[in-house]
Amino acid sequence: MSASTTSTSASATPVAELGRRAAAAARVLATASTAAKDAALLGAADLLVARAPEILDANRRDVERATAEGVSGTVIDRLRLTEAKVGAMAAGLRQVAALADPVGEVIGGWVRPNGLRISQVRVPLGVVAIIYENRPNVTSDAAGLCLKSGNAAFLRGSSGAIHSNIAIAAVLSEAVAKAGLPADSVVLVDDTSRESAVEFMQLRGIVDCLIPRGGPSLIAAILENATVPYVIDGDGNCHVYVDAAADLDMARDIIVNAKTQRPSVCNAAESLLVHSSVAERFLPEAATSLTGVELVGDERARALVPSMQPASDDDWGTEFLDLKLSVRVVDSLDEAISHIAQHGSGHSEAIVTSDIAAADRFCAEVDAAAVVVNASTRFVDGEEFGFGAEIGISTQKLHARGPMGLRQLTSAKYIVRGEGQTRG
Amino acid sequence: MSASTTSTSASATPVAELGRRAAAAARVLATASTAAKDAALLGAADLLVARAPEILDANRRDVERATAEGVSGTVIDRLRLTEAKVGAMAAGLRQVAALADPVGEVIGGWVRPNGLRISQVRVPLGVVAIIYENRPNVTSDAAGLCLKSGNAAFLRGSSGAIHSNIAIAAVLSEAVAKAGLPADSVVLVDDTSRESAVEFMQLRGIVDCLIPRGGPSLIAAILENATVPYVIDGDGNCHVYVDAAADLDMARDIIVNAKTQRPSVCNAAESLLVHSSVAERFLPEAATSLTGVELVGDERARALVPSMQPASDDDWGTEFLDLKLSVRVVDSLDEAISHIAQHGSGHSEAIVTSDIAAADRFCAEVDAAAVVVNASTRFVDGEEFGFGAEIGISTQKLHARGPMGLRQLTSAKYIVRGEGQTRG
Repeated sequence: MSASTTSTSASATPVAELGRRAAAAARVLATASTAAKDAALLGAADLLVARAPEILDANRRDVERATAEGVSGTVIDRLRLTEAKVGAMAAGLRQVAALADPVGEVIGGWVRPNGLRISQVRVPLGVVAIIYENRPNVTSDAAGLCLKSGNAAFLRGSSGAIHSNIAIAAVLSEAVAKAGLPADSVVLVDDTSRESAVEFMQLRGIVDCLIPRGGPSLIAAILENATVPYVIDGDGNCHVYVDAAADLDMARDIIVNAKTQRPSVCNAAESLLVHSSVAERFLPEAATSLTGVELVGDERARALVPSMQPASDDDWGTEFLDLKLSVRVVDSLDEAISHIAQHGSGHSEAIVTSDIAAADRFCAEVDAAAVVVNASTRFVDGEEFGFGAEIGISTQKLHARGPMGLRQLTSAKYIVRGEGQTRG
Repeated sequence: MSASTTSTSASATPVAELGRRAAAAARVLATASTAAKDAALLGAADLLVARAPEILDANRRDVERATAEGVSGTVIDRLRLTEAKVGAMAAGLRQVAALADPVGEVIGGWVRPNGLRISQVRVPLGVVAIIYENRPNVTSDAAGLCLKSGNAAFLRGSSGAIHSNIAIAAVLSEAVAKAGLPADSVVLVDDTSRESAVEFMQLRGIVDCLIPRGGPSLIAAILENATVPYVIDGDGNCHVYVDAAADLDMARDIIVNAKTQRPSVCNAAESLLVHSSVAERFLPEAATSLTGVELVGDERARALVPSMQPASDDDWGTEFLDLKLSVRVVDSLDEAISHIAQHGSGHSEAIVTSDIAAADRFCAEVDAAAVVVNASTRFVDGEEFGFGAEIGISTQKLHARGPMGLRQLTSAKYIVRGEGQTRG
């Protein structure tokens, strides 16, 4: 444990105590009106802007420490806040306030032969725990989504952003309290030791849902330690398959967009599969359009694009998150589907084709959160789906699969109404 | 490890190998037609009846061993099969065949401003793993529900029922294969060692959902060891609250039904809360109607029912699963709601009242899978809800909450259709 970690832990409140506070707040939030939650969100947005100087001050301490510790430039970029970034956090809260409240939505209802009236209504989860890495904006974004969906936000950021996170969470708590809701609607764990992270993942009976926002080591820690229910926002090893019946201009535009528009995100394409009947016409031109992208491929792809390096066995399963793309020539739709079944991560998989039968088979047989026909994989996110905001993209099959917005931060409750019915 | 456990393990196939077989079958089942699945279910029902003699033979070996080991009568009753019980298993499969297929149901759909057409469709989970105790009928019931919902059933029963389970699973596999679906649609783990159970819970990437059917020690083992996603079918410490505005005849009928109609199940009532303004009129008469039920209570309840013993602190949180009921007098709806928040297990909670405001507050503020107004808690199950069958009742908030039928054995997939859209 580093000296700096110890120093933040020294004054820290026990994690379980913080969790209990969040749980008490959650009971109040569960029946809070939409108007009260929206007022809290708008107040928090205003207060973030008003208090930007102290947030930026706190952030400067984190950035200085990271710089002194020789942390990489990319990580420091993510960590560093500016007035504009604080403004964007505030704008995010205002946007969430404008979204429909998912709580109370009647999911379904019916009457039983014995007269019992059953309805299923959407209710908050309760305490939503978020564990995340060095992005201080997650503190505000996650808290906003939790609040709107009637959940207490129980936040555990990394030690590297602790001063920024404390400053942001304090502002949010204050604004929420001013709006008449519990200050503990937003609770930040200020102990950033490894022990506290494990404890955070094991607060069964307190935490209703844990969502990790981070890389493979964080996911591994969750699988190893968590005893609370969780939803994993996993890798995206996304493929674009160019079918024999593809419009090749469309296919080129789609792979260029899916690979290069924002290569660092999970819904970017990492692998291109091309049907052998169109490979000769498609690949050389596509390679030209993908200038600046490192291409690695199988023998047949390399024969058509001489500059392409051989793909290693590992490349097929790797989420590069960078301007790098693996390329393979396949002889059939079946071969494409099998390749995806073997190497895909169940995130987003696209086919480009004009053949309705090929599209239908791809949609039915590819097992992923989203299958995309004739469009870029980059559309698979909460914003582009019209959810208004997202807390992550689930690659698991339970609870939520795909982009997670406000609805995915809720559970359901059955309400059964009778007139004295007893079971015979 | 007992000698008998070792003997079943000796010839056992590795758990991971069995899981991979189930996963391969799941890929086929995912796109199997409803007709094919129904034919398999009906064929399995017929074959269970035809092969009843060999199933009963295998069961006799399990019962003999249990008897020799001095296992309790209740456990042996659960373990023992009869021709009628095998017939009931077959009838269960026929009933599941008659239910609507949840796979392919369109949950929702919309068009984005850029023309992308998004729909969300129900798909199977994949491999559903069930770990269960000494009830051989679960082998057939679980396999039937999994098959209808397009999932491979990956089953791990207890060592005490291993011969019965092997016989039943073999019959099911054979029938499924005869109907043209993979024999591995039903895979039973024949290694009943503790190590195999742990391995079973950790087949991440193979098991899509694990459902435990058993008591607290099984649940504890899941929390401790599982790395695969799971849904917990938990305790039911269910309350009936008799409000100041209750129809007292109705209240009496409901508590008698909720407590005594089948005391050994999770939706039976374990605790009675009575508003002080009606306690004097209600409790003595209710106690008379609850003849044969051991009542334990607080001081005020005992003052009204002299035969009542004092309730210990533990009693309030205990799921008796027996003819025993804890009784408390409360001064307000708030006190009832607080008591339930403290002691309830989030299963089913009932209020008896004629006051609409009290009913509305109870429904909004009590945090449980089901809240029941003026009816028995015993109605909270899949059959009574009209699901046709159930695999359990979830007390967790993620994925499924409350009775779990076929729909709860599915996930969803987004299908995004475009005409070449790329993200700007």
